[in-house]
Amino acid sequence: MESLVPPGFRFHPTDEELVGYYLKKKVASQKIDLDVIRDIDLYRIEPWDLQERCRIGYEEQKEWYFFSHKDKKYPTGTRTNRATMAGFWKATGRDKAVYDKIKLIGMRKTLVFYKGRAPNGQKSDWIIHEYRLESDENGAPQAS
Amino acid sequence: MESLVPPGFRFHPTDEELVGYYLKKKVASQKIDLDVIRDIDLYRIEPWDLQERCRIGYEEQKEWYFFSHKDKKYPTGTRTNRATMAGFWKATGRDKAVYDKIKLIGMRKTLVFYKGRAPNGQKSDWIIHEYRLESDENGAPQAS
Repeated sequence: MESLVPPGFRFHPTDEELVGYYLKKKVASQKIDLDVIRDIDLYRIEPWDLQERCRIGYEEQKEWYFFSHKDKKYPTGTRTNRATMAGFWKATGRDKAVYDKIKLIGMRKTLVFYKGRAPNGQKSDWIIHEYRLESDENGAPQAS
Repeated sequence: MESLVPPGFRFHPTDEELVGYYLKKKVASQKIDLDVIRDIDLYRIEPWDLQERCRIGYEEQKEWYFFSHKDKKYPTGTRTNRATMAGFWKATGRDKAVYDKIKLIGMRKTLVFYKGRAPNGQKSDWIIHEYRLESDENGAPQAS
């Protein structure tokens, strides 16, 4: 994968690029030419294992990009299961709107990882920015 | 050209990448897959005209990359003619060594643009980082 990115180029996408290009294509299962966003199952992987899995090239990274489908806790419900083996992801703050010029194309939610089980658990430094398409209520998250 | 760079990628090369990959290939006239470094004649162009000439994509840039051959002031001399129509480039500070791990592969010189004619002239905010291959005394400069 790393050999596809020419020397000197870094992946620093804007929110608009993540939602309007990458997430849109991922959700539609369209081919992405230089696909540096790994498909993972966020609830089967711990945050500290994401680094190796989502590495791009040889540089030290502090952000990782991936695409994961949402997992429903109860087949009929809308509550989302955000637990892993070691802990859980909990939303924090307000969702942020993502615009393509003046058009709303998606939302960005911030989640923090807690070790342990809800409602307890020990807060960690791991953060996810979860993007969803505005047009798709059950849109699949993609995060950094 | 811009259509070749996928969304989300930015060109932020390190000194090592500029010298060890791009400059080396430019000097050897080798093909560069995604060549975002324009070939120009630095002494036939004013700094403020570089922006349009060396643009990559649609984003606002504060740095531009280009490759230019050195121009000898006197055919037999080693003094380099760094004048344009409107002014001249003058070296400042010390050259910086560029390493590939522990191997010296090039040098980086910093030059400032002065409007007018040497030894007078009015200092500007325009700066060039001129890279040369260490193995090639008359190496062609490449700058940002």
